Amino acid sequence: MERLDRLARLGAVGDDGGITRPGLSAVEDDAHTLVAGWCEEAGLAVSRDAAGNLYARPADSPAAAEIWSGSHVDTVPSGGRFDGALGVVAALEAVIEVAAARPGAPLAVVVFRDEEGWRFRNGCFGSRSVVGDIGPEDLAQRDAAGISVAEALAALGLAGPPVDVALPAAYVETHIEQGPMLESAGAPLGDVAAIVGMAGFSVTFSGSSGHAGTVPMSDRSDAFAACAELAVRLRDRALEIPGSVVTIGDVAIPNPASNVIPGVVRASIDVRAPSIEALDLLVAAVPAVAADVAARNRCGVDAARGGRWQPVALSNRIRRSIRAAARRTEVPITELVSGAGHDAGVLAAAGVDAGMLFVRSLNGGASHRPDELSDEADVAAAIAVLAETLRSLL
Amino acid sequence: MERLDRLARLGAVGDDGGITRPGLSAVEDDAHTLVAGWCEEAGLAVSRDAAGNLYARPADSPAAAEIWSGSHVDTVPSGGRFDGALGVVAALEAVIEVAAARPGAPLAVVVFRDEEGWRFRNGCFGSRSVVGDIGPEDLAQRDAAGISVAEALAALGLAGPPVDVALPAAYVETHIEQGPMLESAGAPLGDVAAIVGMAGFSVTFSGSSGHAGTVPMSDRSDAFAACAELAVRLRDRALEIPGSVVTIGDVAIPNPASNVIPGVVRASIDVRAPSIEALDLLVAAVPAVAADVAARNRCGVDAARGGRWQPVALSNRIRRSIRAAARRTEVPITELVSGAGHDAGVLAAAGVDAGMLFVRSLNGGASHRPDELSDEADVAAAIAVLAETLRSLL
Repeated sequence: MERLDRLARLGAVGDDGGITRPGLSAVEDDAHTLVAGWCEEAGLAVSRDAAGNLYARPADSPAAAEIWSGSHVDTVPSGGRFDGALGVVAALEAVIEVAAARPGAPLAVVVFRDEEGWRFRNGCFGSRSVVGDIGPEDLAQRDAAGISVAEALAALGLAGPPVDVALPAAYVETHIEQGPMLESAGAPLGDVAAIVGMAGFSVTFSGSSGHAGTVPMSDRSDAFAACAELAVRLRDRALEIPGSVVTIGDVAIPNPASNVIPGVVRASIDVRAPSIEALDLLVAAVPAVAADVAARNRCGVDAARGGRWQPVALSNRIRRSIRAAARRTEVPITELVSGAGHDAGVLAAAGVDAGMLFVRSLNGGASHRPDELSDEADVAAAIAVLAETLRSLL
Repeated sequence: MERLDRLARLGAVGDDGGITRPGLSAVEDDAHTLVAGWCEEAGLAVSRDAAGNLYARPADSPAAAEIWSGSHVDTVPSGGRFDGALGVVAALEAVIEVAAARPGAPLAVVVFRDEEGWRFRNGCFGSRSVVGDIGPEDLAQRDAAGISVAEALAALGLAGPPVDVALPAAYVETHIEQGPMLESAGAPLGDVAAIVGMAGFSVTFSGSSGHAGTVPMSDRSDAFAACAELAVRLRDRALEIPGSVVTIGDVAIPNPASNVIPGVVRASIDVRAPSIEALDLLVAAVPAVAADVAARNRCGVDAARGGRWQPVALSNRIRRSIRAAARRTEVPITELVSGAGHDAGVLAAAGVDAGMLFVRSLNGGASHRPDELSDEADVAAAIAVLAETLRSLL
């Protein structure tokens, strides 16, 4: 908990405990440096790859057939202290514990870069670098200030992908649940069966700005009216597809004024679903509904597809190890599906045997906000189960 | 046109010709200084009141029973070069012309402050100062940077209201139409019968932010979903009330991110209608619909009323003078209702005989944007009709 406190001070914003550590920023880098220092204090050998991912291994650990555990230390804007950081701290504690009894065990603590992805509108940069899934178009992406991924990497002294790292034999990621299911079920831990698929869009409606008083309603080309109709109709569509969700989280009107009809509106759309079929339905709805509401509001529309991740099942071998470890340490555990994407999903999609251990969220599953919370006892249980899982996988 | 060019250079933003001169800002003050210089060059005596409104009178003009003509020189963000500035330049040209033949005529060119009102969310600051309609709550209003009206006035060396100015016997304001009606009717000028009533609201929806993937659709408290539903339903309501309009021009999600459900959304609502009955219907709909969509989306809502202006009829005496002047100068003129608020409406509501002369907008009535346009010939016709109107009122 002390390590989580220390990390939470980096990028602290406002008075409500919120933390902003954008991916590939100086403050994310500070968090990597802090974790690297802890690893070195614990006698682990620290290295980093060209994408800035951090690895910490027990001395004399072999490079091959490794078992990795870790997560990320970037956050969403004004996010909480557990998302990402918990998985890094838990991995560090568990690896220290296991390596103390088994010097030279083929283990590594891993800290991936820019998992959240809001800054450059594409998540899991670090783990995608490791599996070879970063191309020139990813490096050319720019943030709101016009800085590209390549420029952000250079500012941190990083050469950038491709990285020269062998994939591990197994990956186990501890993570706060970020939802209400474990709290509802009364279980401190969750064994993640699968990670939902997701797709992102950036939609721009182009209408005609004008004076709020002088253009009759029936003659308007109001870009915000189009965006509002899109939001309502996509919400209603998602309600029809079981398990699917759609979120319009970032909406911007350039040069807004209360007495000017919005001529341009940009909106992000995030869709997720537990099956390929459901994801396909919702992904197909976005450009279709966008075109329809644009036409109805006399606007043009551009619906640009961002990243897409298929739903991915986690490894049955790792899941069996996690459940057996929970049984041996006498911690109740339940099965669930992750509605959030994770670095574990990227590694699993690339063929790594990956598993995830979820830690109960309190506050009704509060996530991506300052009051995100896991209980100290649940965190301790997670570290015990993770250590036992790593031991069993050796 | 040269004077309009000179004014357009003050506060020029971007590459598209847009102009941003916020009310009570240094750049609005620069525009007042430029106009004051022109007035002095023309031999007019310049003064200003405690609210910063500028008056320019022919030498030896009496102070009582005056006839004023003018407008404002502030703009909306990225606005055009005619809105406000045209009425000031036309008044200056007409007063110079009339005073040349009638030295000592009781005329004044008037330039009001902060007509647009977006900066402090309440328009017609200058003319409301003149009619005694500015109270402590107006002076305490703050802009997005936290600067109050009182502080903005002090920064310009102005004591602020109350002002010690006698109301004129008549006021004639020239203004670009800001709508498509004169262009459709093929008329260069418009005689304004009335100004619509309007009311402003600032609505804040408070839901619960959370992770875009882990909260089921049916459990969300999505503040943007509530705002979107409000926008669609108010638009549909306005379509049912003839002549009424509703505009949601400024929408903000604090700390937006594509993968975070918006917990808070703030939106401006601008409603206008040509009759008190229609305005009452639409004004009553705002809090009712806001409460309903908030409840449906499990959000709280605060719908704060801003200013309200009743619909106001302009003076039949001034309107007869304008139409007779147009007839004598052989300029086609048509009657219309103004969908925008104006300083003339504030003076009319205070009992001043006020009239307005609209100049045809080109580009489909483009307004509050860089491509706002009136033709040079139409501007010349407006100055001729305005001068003839002022002469006939003496």
